[in-house]
Amino acid sequence: MREVKVLTKILKANDMIAAENRALFDSYGICCINLMSSPGAGKTTLLEKTSEMLPKSISIAAVEGDVATSLDAERLKAAGIPTVQVNTGGGCHLDAGMIKNALEYLDLRNTGLLFVENVGNLICPSSFDLGEHHRIVMLSIAEGHDKPLKYPGMFMSCEAMILSKTDLLGKCNFDLSAGKESALKVNPRLRIFELSSVEGAGMQEWVKYLEELVREKKKGR
Amino acid sequence: MREVKVLTKILKANDMIAAENRALFDSYGICCINLMSSPGAGKTTLLEKTSEMLPKSISIAAVEGDVATSLDAERLKAAGIPTVQVNTGGGCHLDAGMIKNALEYLDLRNTGLLFVENVGNLICPSSFDLGEHHRIVMLSIAEGHDKPLKYPGMFMSCEAMILSKTDLLGKCNFDLSAGKESALKVNPRLRIFELSSVEGAGMQEWVKYLEELVREKKKGR
Repeated sequence: MREVKVLTKILKANDMIAAENRALFDSYGICCINLMSSPGAGKTTLLEKTSEMLPKSISIAAVEGDVATSLDAERLKAAGIPTVQVNTGGGCHLDAGMIKNALEYLDLRNTGLLFVENVGNLICPSSFDLGEHHRIVMLSIAEGHDKPLKYPGMFMSCEAMILSKTDLLGKCNFDLSAGKESALKVNPRLRIFELSSVEGAGMQEWVKYLEELVREKKKGR
Repeated sequence: MREVKVLTKILKANDMIAAENRALFDSYGICCINLMSSPGAGKTTLLEKTSEMLPKSISIAAVEGDVATSLDAERLKAAGIPTVQVNTGGGCHLDAGMIKNALEYLDLRNTGLLFVENVGNLICPSSFDLGEHHRIVMLSIAEGHDKPLKYPGMFMSCEAMILSKTDLLGKCNFDLSAGKESALKVNPRLRIFELSSVEGAGMQEWVKYLEELVREKKKGR
């Protein structure tokens, strides 16, 4: 019982900071997306390619969460994305306080779309509101079509799922219709994108979706 | 500070039960392996193939950890492996108490090699001793060669790393020598296996290693 109580307290404190973050994003008209997945599903590569394809009118920035190293932030910076690296030092997820601190290092006035690339973990990050407006989960074709059923908390908490690395279809044991079906069983409202960041298939639709989200956010400012 | 104290207490309680589990394994001469990885690295498929290839003299059993579903336990049972499914119901790792409870449902007298297939997560499971004798981490070629540097805690805590899905080499951005180098940088004593459960490459060496571990355990009984 004690564990549960402590966790509840941590989550309440987190939610308060998350609400502050969200209010800050709203005041600047920034659309914030929390991107989550297992390690190696292709989050960083997707952001590199997304940045290339987004119209210049949308300024993208990123908060990069990792247990250790600044490898991913370096990749994003090389792709021209202003990025703040957050190292959790063993922690398995980002929390709202980490985002709050990271925001001090970003030029919010000149940001239209902020991606938070969460720590690679299909479980814990879904329990922590960061102040984002949208949650998106990425599932790589190499991981197998049963994952939404096995990790339901994550897929329930998101509004969209990206099936990444579609270039590996036919090379891995992934049944595309079973994968979509299992995701929709867990969360019937899930919007599904299928794409290959490396080969480009499906990227246009994804970028169009982001443009819509940014447009909606600006309208609602 | 409070969070840390509570976590320390949980870990101490866990370590006591882990020690009991280990003593129980020792009394039966059972070799217990804690197999950890990201979701979808191929743990279950490896166990299916391992069971086919192990000599009949080694009786294998498994404890299968998942957030939800009994999909993996059903696969292992179909492969002839006596298996107990543990569902964590949202929890991101197995702990020693869960293993202790699961052991009641296994025929320990007739078990030589016990695999604990941990929850798919490259972070949290490494903090919890289950009473195992050996810890092995699996990294799929699809996940990328930078993962040992990005998730050092897991790779430091293990004595062997399996690079799985080598059939995907050349189809994914994975530099084999960089992958091994990054793993050895984090843990210079790491023994490395490269294999494809699906195509069979590297499986003989892996099975030979398991036979050695079981033999050593019996000697030390």
